[in-house]
Amino acid sequence: MSKSSSQSLRAIPLGGLGEFGMNMMALRFGDDIIVIDAGMMFPESELLGIDLVIPDIAYLKQNRQHVRAIVLTHGHEDHIGALPYILRDLNVPVFGTRFTLALVKKRLEEAGLLESSTLREVIPGRRIEIGPYEIEFIPVTHSTIDCVALAVRTPIGVIIHTGDFKIDHTPVNGAGFDIATFAKYGNEGVLALFSDSTNVERPGYTPSERAVVPRIEELCRSAPRRVILSCFASSIHRIQQVIDIAQRVGRKVAFVGRSMVDNVEIAHNLECLNIPDGMVVRSQDIRGFEPRKLIVLASGSQAEPMSSLSRIAVDNHRFVSVDENDTVILSSRIIPGNEKAIFRMLDHMFRRRALVYYDNSAGIIHVSGHASQEEQKLLLQLVRPKYFIPVHGEYRHLFRHAALAHQVGSVSGEILLLEDGKCIEFTEDGAFRRDPVTAGRVLVDSGSLEEVEEVVVRERKHLSEDGVVVPIIAIDKHTGNLESQPEIVTRGFISDNGSDLMVGARDVVLRTINASNSEEMSDYSVIKEKIRVDLKRYINKQTSKRPLILPVILEV
Amino acid sequence: MSKSSSQSLRAIPLGGLGEFGMNMMALRFGDDIIVIDAGMMFPESELLGIDLVIPDIAYLKQNRQHVRAIVLTHGHEDHIGALPYILRDLNVPVFGTRFTLALVKKRLEEAGLLESSTLREVIPGRRIEIGPYEIEFIPVTHSTIDCVALAVRTPIGVIIHTGDFKIDHTPVNGAGFDIATFAKYGNEGVLALFSDSTNVERPGYTPSERAVVPRIEELCRSAPRRVILSCFASSIHRIQQVIDIAQRVGRKVAFVGRSMVDNVEIAHNLECLNIPDGMVVRSQDIRGFEPRKLIVLASGSQAEPMSSLSRIAVDNHRFVSVDENDTVILSSRIIPGNEKAIFRMLDHMFRRRALVYYDNSAGIIHVSGHASQEEQKLLLQLVRPKYFIPVHGEYRHLFRHAALAHQVGSVSGEILLLEDGKCIEFTEDGAFRRDPVTAGRVLVDSGSLEEVEEVVVRERKHLSEDGVVVPIIAIDKHTGNLESQPEIVTRGFISDNGSDLMVGARDVVLRTINASNSEEMSDYSVIKEKIRVDLKRYINKQTSKRPLILPVILEV
Repeated sequence: MSKSSSQSLRAIPLGGLGEFGMNMMALRFGDDIIVIDAGMMFPESELLGIDLVIPDIAYLKQNRQHVRAIVLTHGHEDHIGALPYILRDLNVPVFGTRFTLALVKKRLEEAGLLESSTLREVIPGRRIEIGPYEIEFIPVTHSTIDCVALAVRTPIGVIIHTGDFKIDHTPVNGAGFDIATFAKYGNEGVLALFSDSTNVERPGYTPSERAVVPRIEELCRSAPRRVILSCFASSIHRIQQVIDIAQRVGRKVAFVGRSMVDNVEIAHNLECLNIPDGMVVRSQDIRGFEPRKLIVLASGSQAEPMSSLSRIAVDNHRFVSVDENDTVILSSRIIPGNEKAIFRMLDHMFRRRALVYYDNSAGIIHVSGHASQEEQKLLLQLVRPKYFIPVHGEYRHLFRHAALAHQVGSVSGEILLLEDGKCIEFTEDGAFRRDPVTAGRVLVDSGSLEEVEEVVVRERKHLSEDGVVVPIIAIDKHTGNLESQPEIVTRGFISDNGSDLMVGARDVVLRTINASNSEEMSDYSVIKEKIRVDLKRYINKQTSKRPLILPVILEV
Repeated sequence: MSKSSSQSLRAIPLGGLGEFGMNMMALRFGDDIIVIDAGMMFPESELLGIDLVIPDIAYLKQNRQHVRAIVLTHGHEDHIGALPYILRDLNVPVFGTRFTLALVKKRLEEAGLLESSTLREVIPGRRIEIGPYEIEFIPVTHSTIDCVALAVRTPIGVIIHTGDFKIDHTPVNGAGFDIATFAKYGNEGVLALFSDSTNVERPGYTPSERAVVPRIEELCRSAPRRVILSCFASSIHRIQQVIDIAQRVGRKVAFVGRSMVDNVEIAHNLECLNIPDGMVVRSQDIRGFEPRKLIVLASGSQAEPMSSLSRIAVDNHRFVSVDENDTVILSSRIIPGNEKAIFRMLDHMFRRRALVYYDNSAGIIHVSGHASQEEQKLLLQLVRPKYFIPVHGEYRHLFRHAALAHQVGSVSGEILLLEDGKCIEFTEDGAFRRDPVTAGRVLVDSGSLEEVEEVVVRERKHLSEDGVVVPIIAIDKHTGNLESQPEIVTRGFISDNGSDLMVGARDVVLRTINASNSEEMSDYSVIKEKIRVDLKRYINKQTSKRPLILPVILEV
């Protein structure tokens, strides 16, 4: 492969370097851009009324004629969830494995974009060419199926992007983690490695997905009545293992929850899930089915409002209730931020005298899908890249992954700590930091599929703390005279509108108006501001609160 | 002690049985009520604009003439924080140890209640009498100082309430956990034990407070520059140990943050903290002081907004900055719900290239103040009560503590699972559940020291999600005619008020009015509701959002 000294490759991280979620990175060689993943992120609770967060793709839009493809590593929301929003603006071909694309199809169908989108299936272990890039899809193990890392060969060298991975030597089904191919690239020479930092705080190895079997089987075997097990609906391995366990302990399975039912159906249709005939009990038959012979697989492990498990916990589910001596197994991690909701849900299970299992303290019922430190070290030793860039994590994870790589010592060139928008350019002479590009979070209110501006979220935050006070006056447009007594409407502030406070507030507005001259009265923006300031002072003095004050002048 | 068969003792849990925080329990013998603790709780994030939550004391107010005292076990906010609100309604004597009362004084002073309150100091190991109760204050170990359990002798038997405790055999200073006295009561016979369930999910023993010394000393000794250590300001033992370490490694200490400075001053004045002369560097001298010779003790370990540590992290503190190779030690637990904020803060420290330590993975830098399972078992074996009631925890903690007691087998009578408001009556014939009393959470907006009604919080929640839309029309009170075009004001909804959506919304309001007959127009509640419903339908159809719609009719 010929190299000219003017050739260079840029890596442009657009999401996932500085936060968990919304993973997205662009590679640019000359005028050809490919994008790795297009993920979303769940908003922090302070982002009020925001349903999800996606990366800002201003850079891609500015270079829309150069974007050749989006290439997906796997089907988790933090890798594909932004597609319905991004393809709307940037309709480029999307490459992914079979199961990954099946999940993408579902999302695009819901968004009405399936018809207009181009989806290209790739096969793990095979290669494709896109412009100057030759991409090999390397099978890796993770908590969902059909996951790949990418080896991207460019005229200037090979880039490896791990996607999400762990190194599971005893995978549940399908291809395992393809160590040999990573080693092959390592021997050949890798320009840069971009690797998953998620579990860098965990020493040792992440246990195999199979590690959950003994304890879950024991619980299902000894359960005095029905078992209700919840896991992420995308954890097809986990679901397969529970089906296998059910068979061994003489139970049937039932699936409840939209995402659980959908994903099982998708995986089953693709023959990624092996469900023996006669194993499945329909949800409408659960109530009548012998409880000692059933395992219910339910979505809602994060206690999402309206999810199956949340509704089961408060006895508000059409087909499933939890009764005394039922066994409830939460076979998933508790995502930080969800603890309160999850434990509130589990408390309801305890109140109903269920036998509740939710952590690994008495045996493993959940394992992570991400590599721990020893696996991350192993990967670094296999690939021995010239440059190493940690991805997928908050800043401290990236930092600690960089420190880990330093300790391993297998990076021949430089270890680079990047954040979203910070570009790096690889040339024959080295790796150089370039001017950052626009990057950041776009807030989406999913009902409307529209971006929400930060100012609107700030207003919501303000509204949420002290409520809103709307003083309203009517002014005669000809005379400038007050045509009504001031009216004051509040919400989220006080519940009694006839209170002394409100009587006083109306007086304040009236005094402000009376103290204004006709010139002020004719400039509504001035009079509104005067009312706002006076009322704010009055309310703050009386209540120490700072509601959003929103004066309205009506011309009559 | 004579017992008549009509004598009975009621235990009335008012807080802390079903949640962490707002601990409060009343005991009633005949017409004499004493209250154990009066704690507050930090609100969950969905309680918008609420600063703190306190127990509903309706029961105590209904029986105000019978309430003899509030007796405190220790000075943490979840045991004393409701006092400024409760003493306002119910001015009864407050009993507590020296340090506990010093903290209470500070709170009451801030609330302007110190003058009117009656505080009575008690001495650990001694007894007092209040009406029919003889109360012994049994020294226990915990994460703050001067903590006691209560042995309450009544004509019908002895009640033991542990307060918060762990069993620390090597306490940092002062009296340790008084095992002998618990054993003495156990031998004599205890009617009921109320015991701390906080750490019931942890097997084994909680390490001694001294367990943090080796690792923190090592970090301070080898730190290349300044050390910034943050812990809870009430952790006087921890602060003492850091001062001792500082002396051994040849460093001075500085204190920053209001709560840190206040608590150190209080503890020092009471001689609960031993600070050698010349050890303390004033905060204004920190910048000029040799970084290799200093440990800064800062409050803000939970990344509270405006706290010292939060401000240091973003280089916005008057006296302290964090620079490359400074050592930052978070010597505290990460309270669930605060992870995002704490890690965001630590990420800033990482960005500044500080050496950041925040968990026990490489050596213990924090230990809990609460008993783990083995200590809880030991206590049950020492006290061997007739009845056992787990306190201080969410439902599952109480449940698991009950299960643990069952397993230990040292409860001769019954293990009782209570929740807030659920009363139990002890008589000679047994323990009986009685009608529940009013109990629950009162939401406080601390600025105003006032209760906030649930309806107001619901409005805030609604406002926070989709904002507010206020359609306003002016109607001539004589003719019923519309006197202006409809005006629509929004906040937290969309940022562009001149948009097509708003033009359409004004049309909707106009059409609704035009389609109304004069009878409807004269009944403002009818016309408002019609506007609300039509506008809601329009906005939901156009945007899928459901803002709070608040029609206003102005009579001119």
